[in-house]
Amino acid sequence: MENELVAEVVLSGALPEGPEGEALVRPIAEEAVAQVLGAKSEGAVSQLVVRGERIAITLTSTGARPHQALLSFVKRLQDRLGRSHRVGIRSLRALHYTVRFPLDPVPAQPIGLPIPHEIWYEGTTAVLTLSELDEEALRDNWIDRAVALVEEKARRQAYQGKEQYWALLKPAVVRPGSFREDPTEAMIRRGWVRNGPTKGKWFLGPRAAHVLRAMERLARREVLEPLGFSEVVQPHHDSFDILLRTGHLAGLPGEFYYVAEPRTRDPGAWERFTDLVKITRQVPTEELAKLVGPPSAVSCYAQCPTVYWWLSGRTIAEGSLPLKVYDRTAISNRYESGGRHGLERVDEFHRIEPVYLGTPEQLLALREELLARYTQVFDNVLELEWRTAWVTPFYLQQSGGVGVEDATERIQGTIDFEAYLPYRGSREESEWLEFQNLSIVGDKYTKAFTIRPQKGLLWSGCSGIGLERWTTAFLAQKGLDPEGWPSRFREIAGPPPPDPTFL
Amino acid sequence: MENELVAEVVLSGALPEGPEGEALVRPIAEEAVAQVLGAKSEGAVSQLVVRGERIAITLTSTGARPHQALLSFVKRLQDRLGRSHRVGIRSLRALHYTVRFPLDPVPAQPIGLPIPHEIWYEGTTAVLTLSELDEEALRDNWIDRAVALVEEKARRQAYQGKEQYWALLKPAVVRPGSFREDPTEAMIRRGWVRNGPTKGKWFLGPRAAHVLRAMERLARREVLEPLGFSEVVQPHHDSFDILLRTGHLAGLPGEFYYVAEPRTRDPGAWERFTDLVKITRQVPTEELAKLVGPPSAVSCYAQCPTVYWWLSGRTIAEGSLPLKVYDRTAISNRYESGGRHGLERVDEFHRIEPVYLGTPEQLLALREELLARYTQVFDNVLELEWRTAWVTPFYLQQSGGVGVEDATERIQGTIDFEAYLPYRGSREESEWLEFQNLSIVGDKYTKAFTIRPQKGLLWSGCSGIGLERWTTAFLAQKGLDPEGWPSRFREIAGPPPPDPTFL
Repeated sequence: MENELVAEVVLSGALPEGPEGEALVRPIAEEAVAQVLGAKSEGAVSQLVVRGERIAITLTSTGARPHQALLSFVKRLQDRLGRSHRVGIRSLRALHYTVRFPLDPVPAQPIGLPIPHEIWYEGTTAVLTLSELDEEALRDNWIDRAVALVEEKARRQAYQGKEQYWALLKPAVVRPGSFREDPTEAMIRRGWVRNGPTKGKWFLGPRAAHVLRAMERLARREVLEPLGFSEVVQPHHDSFDILLRTGHLAGLPGEFYYVAEPRTRDPGAWERFTDLVKITRQVPTEELAKLVGPPSAVSCYAQCPTVYWWLSGRTIAEGSLPLKVYDRTAISNRYESGGRHGLERVDEFHRIEPVYLGTPEQLLALREELLARYTQVFDNVLELEWRTAWVTPFYLQQSGGVGVEDATERIQGTIDFEAYLPYRGSREESEWLEFQNLSIVGDKYTKAFTIRPQKGLLWSGCSGIGLERWTTAFLAQKGLDPEGWPSRFREIAGPPPPDPTFL
Repeated sequence: MENELVAEVVLSGALPEGPEGEALVRPIAEEAVAQVLGAKSEGAVSQLVVRGERIAITLTSTGARPHQALLSFVKRLQDRLGRSHRVGIRSLRALHYTVRFPLDPVPAQPIGLPIPHEIWYEGTTAVLTLSELDEEALRDNWIDRAVALVEEKARRQAYQGKEQYWALLKPAVVRPGSFREDPTEAMIRRGWVRNGPTKGKWFLGPRAAHVLRAMERLARREVLEPLGFSEVVQPHHDSFDILLRTGHLAGLPGEFYYVAEPRTRDPGAWERFTDLVKITRQVPTEELAKLVGPPSAVSCYAQCPTVYWWLSGRTIAEGSLPLKVYDRTAISNRYESGGRHGLERVDEFHRIEPVYLGTPEQLLALREELLARYTQVFDNVLELEWRTAWVTPFYLQQSGGVGVEDATERIQGTIDFEAYLPYRGSREESEWLEFQNLSIVGDKYTKAFTIRPQKGLLWSGCSGIGLERWTTAFLAQKGLDPEGWPSRFREIAGPPPPDPTFL
C-alpha cells in the first residue's frame, strides 16, 4: 500500500446509519475503485462509515493514486442517491492524503511545502501526507505536484553548490590582441554610453548604437535570412498565463520586472495625484500605490514563450515545417540585483531570438546549419576567439539522455558560445563570456502550448543572440578604434556616425 | 497688498518679551524685507510679536512673494542671535499664506487643491490662502505652483468639452481606391496578426511584421539618414525623475504602464511563491504583492524625454548643432482602456522618434527639410491620401504666439499628419487617422534638462513616426494584396515572406 486517502463526503440529506447505510454506499465505492484503479493498480475501500449526512471513506492503493477513484465514487454517488434517495453532494474534502515514494539520498535539510503537510522518511522511502485538500485540489492533482516538488527540493539539496555540467565541444583558436580594457569603461570614457536613469540599463549614443545595430544586421544577413527565418513582432509584455505554461513563473520570479496597470484612466480619479505632483514636484508614493493595480504581467524575460503562445492550439502543415521565425523587437529585462557589470551583465538587453519547430531530424539538421553560419560569422567577420560547450543544469545531470554520460546523447540540450575577454585575465583562469546559445528542447513547449504537427513528432528549439554580448565580446577583443576592426565587419557596419561634441 | 504671509519662528531659547525683544528682531526683519523685496515690490513687516521662544511675524507685499524675505529673515536671525544670544532656529512654518491674483472668468465649479487651503473670489480676483506650510514647502515655492494650478483648473473649466484647435495646412490630394475594409479585421482573417496575450497588444506574424519593418526602413532611408540623423538606443523604462522634469507624470499618469521591481532576488524569499505556483499552477496574488515593490518607473510612454535626459547637464559644441538623433528601440506603451481599436489604437506600439536640438533658425529650416522628405514618402512611395494640420491643445489657445490667431506665428507648435481611412466612411464626415506629427517645442525641454548651447538660444523638437499608424493608413487605403501596392513601396519592402499554413 503506497497511497492512503482519508476523505469525507457531506450529503444534502441523511442516509440510514450503520450497516444499512454502508450497504447502500459500499458497492458504489467498490465499483469506482475497480473501474478507475482497475487491473493495473491494487486498490481497496479500506474503511467506510456512514453517519447521517456524512460519509467517511478511506481508499488505499498501490501504483495509481486513489483520488481519481474518489472523484468517480462521488460522481456515482450523486447519480444513484439523487435518484433513489433525493440526496445530493454538498462537499468533498480529503482529511489526509498519504503517499510513499522512493527518495535517495534522503535530504539532509528539512523540506517544506506551503500547504498543510507532514513528511518523514522510512529508509529511502519518503512518506508525504497532505491535509485538508478540497475538491479542486484533488481534481487538480496537487498530490503529484507536491511529490514532484519534494523530489526537486531533494535534488537541489544534493547538488547544492555544484556547477552546471560543462563539456568543451569546439576549442578556441587563439587570436593574439593588444586591447586589455574593460570595453564598457572605455566606452564610458569616450562618451559612447551613459549609465541609464534606472538600474542596469544603458543609453547608447550614436557610436555604441552603430556597433549594436551592426551586430543585429550581421546576425540577420549572415545567419537568419540565408536560412529562411522570417521576422515576427511580438508584444513586449509576457502574460502570467504564458509564464505559468512555460514554467518561468515558478522558476525565476525574483528576476522579473513586473508590470502593473493603472486602476483607472479617469483623470478625475488621478486629480489628487496630479495636483500633488504639480505642487510638490515629487512622486506621492502612497497616493500612487492606491491608483495602480497589482502586478499583472512582466516585462519580456525571454522571447520564445510568446512565440509558442502565438502558435498555441494550431496544427502546422507539413509543408510549413521546419517553421523558422525570429523576434528582435521585445526588449529583455532581468532584475540583476548585485550581479550587474557593464554592458555584459545588465537589467535590459536586446536580443534576436530565433525559434524553430520541426521533426527531430529537421531540428538536428538545422542545428548544424546554424552552427556553420555562426562559425562563419565569429571566425571570418568578427574574428573572435571563441569556443562552444555542451551545458546541462546541475539538477538534470542525472537524467538520462542529456549528453552528460554519453556524448552521442547530445540531442536535446544547449550549446553555449563563449568568448575570451582579455580584460578579465588569462585565457585559462578568467571566466569567459557566454555571448550566445543554441538549444533543442524536444516537445516541452510544443506540448505545453498544444502545437501539433500534421503528422509525426513536433519538437522545438531556440537560440539567443544577445546583441550587447556580441558587442562586448567584440570590443573586448578588438578595442574601440574602428581602424583595428576586421575589414568584413567594417564593411557591414559602414562608416561610424559623428559623435556630438560636448564642452 | 496682494500677498500676506503669517508665520511663526520657534527658537532654541527665549528672547526678552515685549518691546525689548521686538526691538531686537524688527530691524533684522525689515532689513530682510528691504533687501529681498527691494525697490521692485512694496513689502512690509506688518506685525511682529516676540513671546519667549516664539516669534509671530506677518509680512505683506505687492508684486514679489514675501516668503523669500521670510527665509532671508530667518537666516539673518540665526546668524545674529547665534552670536549675541546663543539662540538658534528650531522651526519655521507659515500659518497662512494668502495671495491675490486675477482670474477671469471666475470658475463656475469649485476648485480643489490637495493641501490645506481656502479660495474665494472678489470680482475677478482670486484670493488663495494656503495653511500650514513647513519650511520645505516655502523654500520649494508651493505657493506659486498652487496659483498656477488654480489658473490651469480655471482654464480647463472654461474650455471643458472644446476641441483642440485645428487648422488645415496642406489639403489632401484625393486618391480613389477600392479597398473599404478595416485593415486589422482583414489581417486577423488572413492570420497576419493575433490579438496579444495582454490588453491592446498584438502579435505580428511574418506578413504583418514585413510591412511594419518596411515602414521603418522607409522612414530611415528616405527621411532620417539623408538628413543626417544618427541612431541612439535608449532604455525602455522611463524614470519618475525624468517624467517629473518633462511634466508627463503630472499630465498623464492614468495612461502609463507602471514597472515594479522585485523586493529581492533571493530564491529563499520567493520559495513560498514558487512552491505555490508549482503545486497550484496559479498565481498566488497576495504572496506576489508582498514580494514586489511599489511602482518605481514606467514602461516608455514617449521617447524624447530620455533623449533629453541623455544630454542633461551638457553644453553642446556649436559644430554639433543641429544635433539630430533618433530612437527606434524603446517600445511605447499607453494604457488605452476603452479606446482600443485594431492596430491603430493600441496599448503598445513601435515608433521612431527623431529628436533635434539647435538654434530656432536651424530648427525651422530642419522642419522644412523634414516636411519635404515626408511629403516625398507619403506622395511618391506610399501614395497616400493625407493632409497636414496645425494643432494646438485647447488650453493653450489663448496663449500668444501659438499660431491660432495669426498663422505667421506658427513657429513653436505641432503639425499633425492625417490619413483618410476609407473604412470609416466619407472623406468629409469620417475621422482621419493621425499617423505622424512634427513639433518644435522651443526651450521647454532644453531648460528642464539644463542642456546648453555653446552660444545663443537652444531649442528642440521631435517628430513621432508611428509604425503601426503608417501601416494602418497604408493598408486601409491600399489593401492587403501586395499586387495592389505602389511599386516603389514594393521595391523597398522586398518579396513578402511565406506565411505558415495552419490546418
